[in-house]
Amino acid sequence: MPSNAPSWTHLDEKGRLKMVDVSDKAPTWREARAVGRVRMAPETLKRILEGEVAKGNVLEAARLAGIMAAKRTWELIPLCHPIPLTAVEVSFEPDEDLPGIRLQSRTKTCDRTGVEMEALTAVAHAALTIYDMCKALDRTMCLEGIRLVYKSGGRSGTFAVSDEA
Amino acid sequence: MPSNAPSWTHLDEKGRLKMVDVSDKAPTWREARAVGRVRMAPETLKRILEGEVAKGNVLEAARLAGIMAAKRTWELIPLCHPIPLTAVEVSFEPDEDLPGIRLQSRTKTCDRTGVEMEALTAVAHAALTIYDMCKALDRTMCLEGIRLVYKSGGRSGTFAVSDEA
Amino acid sequence: MPSNAPSWTHLDEKGRLKMVDVSDKAPTWREARAVGRVRMAPETLKRILEGEVAKGNVLEAARLAGIMAAKRTWELIPLCHPIPLTAVEVSFEPDEDLPGIRLQSRTKTCDRTGVEMEALTAVAHAALTIYDMCKALDRTMCLEGIRLVYKSGGRSGTFAVSDEA
Amino acid sequence: MPSNAPSWTHLDEKGRLKMVDVSDKAPTWREARAVGRVRMAPETLKRILEGEVAKGNVLEAARLAGIMAAKRTWELIPLCHPIPLTAVEVSFEPDEDLPGIRLQSRTKTCDRTGVEMEALTAVAHAALTIYDMCKALDRTMCLEGIRLVYKSGGRSGTFAVSDEA
Amino acid sequence: MPSNAPSWTHLDEKGRLKMVDVSDKAPTWREARAVGRVRMAPETLKRILEGEVAKGNVLEAARLAGIMAAKRTWELIPLCHPIPLTAVEVSFEPDEDLPGIRLQSRTKTCDRTGVEMEALTAVAHAALTIYDMCKALDRTMCLEGIRLVYKSGGRSGTFAVSDEA
Amino acid sequence: MPSNAPSWTHLDEKGRLKMVDVSDKAPTWREARAVGRVRMAPETLKRILEGEVAKGNVLEAARLAGIMAAKRTWELIPLCHPIPLTAVEVSFEPDEDLPGIRLQSRTKTCDRTGVEMEALTAVAHAALTIYDMCKALDRTMCLEGIRLVYKSGGRSGTFAVSDEA
Repeated sequence: MPSNAPSWTHLDEKGRLKMVDVSDKAPTWREARAVGRVRMAPETLKRILEGEVAKGNVLEAARLAGIMAAKRTWELIPLCHPIPLTAVEVSFEPDEDLPGIRLQSRTKTCDRTGVEMEALTAVAHAALTIYDMCKALDRTMCLEGIRLVYKSGGRSGTFAVSDEA
Repeated sequence: MPSNAPSWTHLDEKGRLKMVDVSDKAPTWREARAVGRVRMAPETLKRILEGEVAKGNVLEAARLAGIMAAKRTWELIPLCHPIPLTAVEVSFEPDEDLPGIRLQSRTKTCDRTGVEMEALTAVAHAALTIYDMCKALDRTMCLEGIRLVYKSGGRSGTFAVSDEA
Repeated sequence: MPSNAPSWTHLDEKGRLKMVDVSDKAPTWREARAVGRVRMAPETLKRILEGEVAKGNVLEAARLAGIMAAKRTWELIPLCHPIPLTAVEVSFEPDEDLPGIRLQSRTKTCDRTGVEMEALTAVAHAALTIYDMCKALDRTMCLEGIRLVYKSGGRSGTFAVSDEA
Repeated sequence: MPSNAPSWTHLDEKGRLKMVDVSDKAPTWREARAVGRVRMAPETLKRILEGEVAKGNVLEAARLAGIMAAKRTWELIPLCHPIPLTAVEVSFEPDEDLPGIRLQSRTKTCDRTGVEMEALTAVAHAALTIYDMCKALDRTMCLEGIRLVYKSGGRSGTFAVSDEA
Repeated sequence: MPSNAPSWTHLDEKGRLKMVDVSDKAPTWREARAVGRVRMAPETLKRILEGEVAKGNVLEAARLAGIMAAKRTWELIPLCHPIPLTAVEVSFEPDEDLPGIRLQSRTKTCDRTGVEMEALTAVAHAALTIYDMCKALDRTMCLEGIRLVYKSGGRSGTFAVSDEA
Repeated sequence: MPSNAPSWTHLDEKGRLKMVDVSDKAPTWREARAVGRVRMAPETLKRILEGEVAKGNVLEAARLAGIMAAKRTWELIPLCHPIPLTAVEVSFEPDEDLPGIRLQSRTKTCDRTGVEMEALTAVAHAALTIYDMCKALDRTMCLEGIRLVYKSGGRSGTFAVSDEA
């Protein structure tokens, strides 16, 4: 590989797994945002949207699941560091053109390592929970476009891409 | 809604959240399979594939993460039942045309409810872990096409769709 | 003590802690119901009840917390057995005379030991979550009357008391 | 509502659930104390008190359960922040007039948010564990008076009420 | 390797990790026993033994930790199956000749796979907890001889060796 | 006891369990290293070493298990504090003379209390996972010599002993 290529952070020089030693990094504010979509049959989305309570409760259950999983990212992703998050947000936007639900998350902390995985984990679990809530209506739903759209803080600086799907 | 429309299983008649009471169902063999993809820059995939050890360890870490998360699905997805899985498999297929990694999972149990969420959770966590392992090389990776391709057992019978993306 | 007094199940003959060995018991259907109350200032209850969405979301968050904790009872209460619950229900009844919220839970399984602790854990966590949701409005809330009102199944048979506070 | 009424911290302006973003708060020392009671039949308390070892082990098991649960409060209460506690104490006082056991807890940390829920969770789990330890002797035990009696630190300052039941 | 050599259960034919698919095995009663030792300075053991309460509480805390960890073995050991244990016992024998504490565990279930790892996990966590309780007195303690001494049930039949160290 | 003897940190003056209140300690850098061995039959070690992939995957699975458990030490060891680790390393050295595998771990954080238990927990879980991976080949494996070899930071200063078995 070219000598200026970025190197593996989770593999040592022999390719063995390793957790990054972040002891030498200073704690700084870190933020991340991720997005994703649950694509579903038009009737499934219609069913969610036709009842105000149903819509509220499907999405609130998904929101809680996303928030709760984000806090446990370090338990679930083997080489992540334990991070005491100061903020986790999960939001939803039904989209009849998709058709389905668009998801956004935002995570924040002041620590020695970033919160990108926390943001992605929040979206993934909120999306899985939407699937669970609706799967008796529609087994063909699909989780799509789960990706990072923003991160700031840390040595590698700011990353930002369009959050449009 | 038409009277023969499938009904919500996780919302009661007033739209409140509920866990399904499966006490009246008989334990039967249940199996599920899910798929997904991690799309990445061509160079990222090349980096994974160029070292036999690196490739092995990225994918083995992702496999363990997927298996371990599948076992904890009921902790993570709020209205899932605790299920003692008898099998969890996670497999990978690098695809230079994608480019990226294709993921498949299979879960099995003999219980009163299905293991679809366990299969989806396995794929989602394996994919998140691939993201984590490679994120220093490529922040634009995207989790795509996470969906159920097969389930059998239980009152609703067998569901099967093509597992091609 | 009189020889017919009930004996400790979680202490051995020398008073040391023990988990009950339930290997010799047959799996039978077990059900339990518990109740409890969160007493609060009249204005706190009014605030919860005045907004349909607020009321819904405070109670739905508490319901999910109660259900999720019930599934993890065996992790939290040191000498409980792991039990795959087939049903967990948590319900609420605002009571302006209390004033506050009354809580009920129901748990069910087919196993070698009962689900009383699961029912009590569901109520306790739903009540703690109501406290958390409302604590910025009212720090004087009080969790009261958390107790078992019904259990059936197992060697000790059925227990039932009035569920009125 | 009057404009100076305290506002929901866990609901946004549309009533949707949210975790408080504490990023802008400074870490300060936070302490909280909670109390509660397990009321039981006079003979149940007598049985606990008549054996020094039994009494010790019932209460020590309850103490460990309370301490261990307090550390996991953020996993259990959906919108709590992860907090690295610097101290958790749980203590007990048998009371023949109740009759039953009185419980007290104290939690402490230096962080951006308070430890009230941690103190309440400690008492609730210690009380549930006493119930579990003694339930073969007495199913009519009742968890009562679980409430906050003190908190200090943070923007809202000190709160203190009598810890007498 | 000779064709009759036992084969890897957790590696597939290409050496990749796998969880055993136990779906085809019948549930049968499985039991396992493990032992271990915590060797310590003579004065450390003396300090534990000189106070009846201290001795009781050090060992009871270790016992609870061992029991609680055994129940979570499937979360901790990546390729273990979730098993609803019907019994977990942890016992201790101070030994002045060692000097130190000898530990024994017993686990039992009726399932498709064995409980050896649960027995070993119980001993390991009880021993780690003894270390934690006494480490301010003695940092040279050593965990030794943690091994299986008995297992029964399942296709591979009964295994038994002397439990003497 | 002599008045200058070190005192129990996890027992109060009456011998009751307690978690240490570390609120008054300043956060400082803490590091710990532990070692251990899995002794096995010569053929078992040979089987591990004869296949490059098998060897890699047995050890990588054990490494991940050790790292993941270290992060959860405070959940597993009842009186440990939650500690956000900045580094966890687990390494292995096959030793044909043992015969078996030697394990080393290193943990690090900047906090008010040390990470000795985290280092020991990492070794114990990596060793348990090696046992699990190889148990179908050899049930006589034994976990030995799990002990602390180094710690620095904190009031009690540096501790270092030879890491040779």
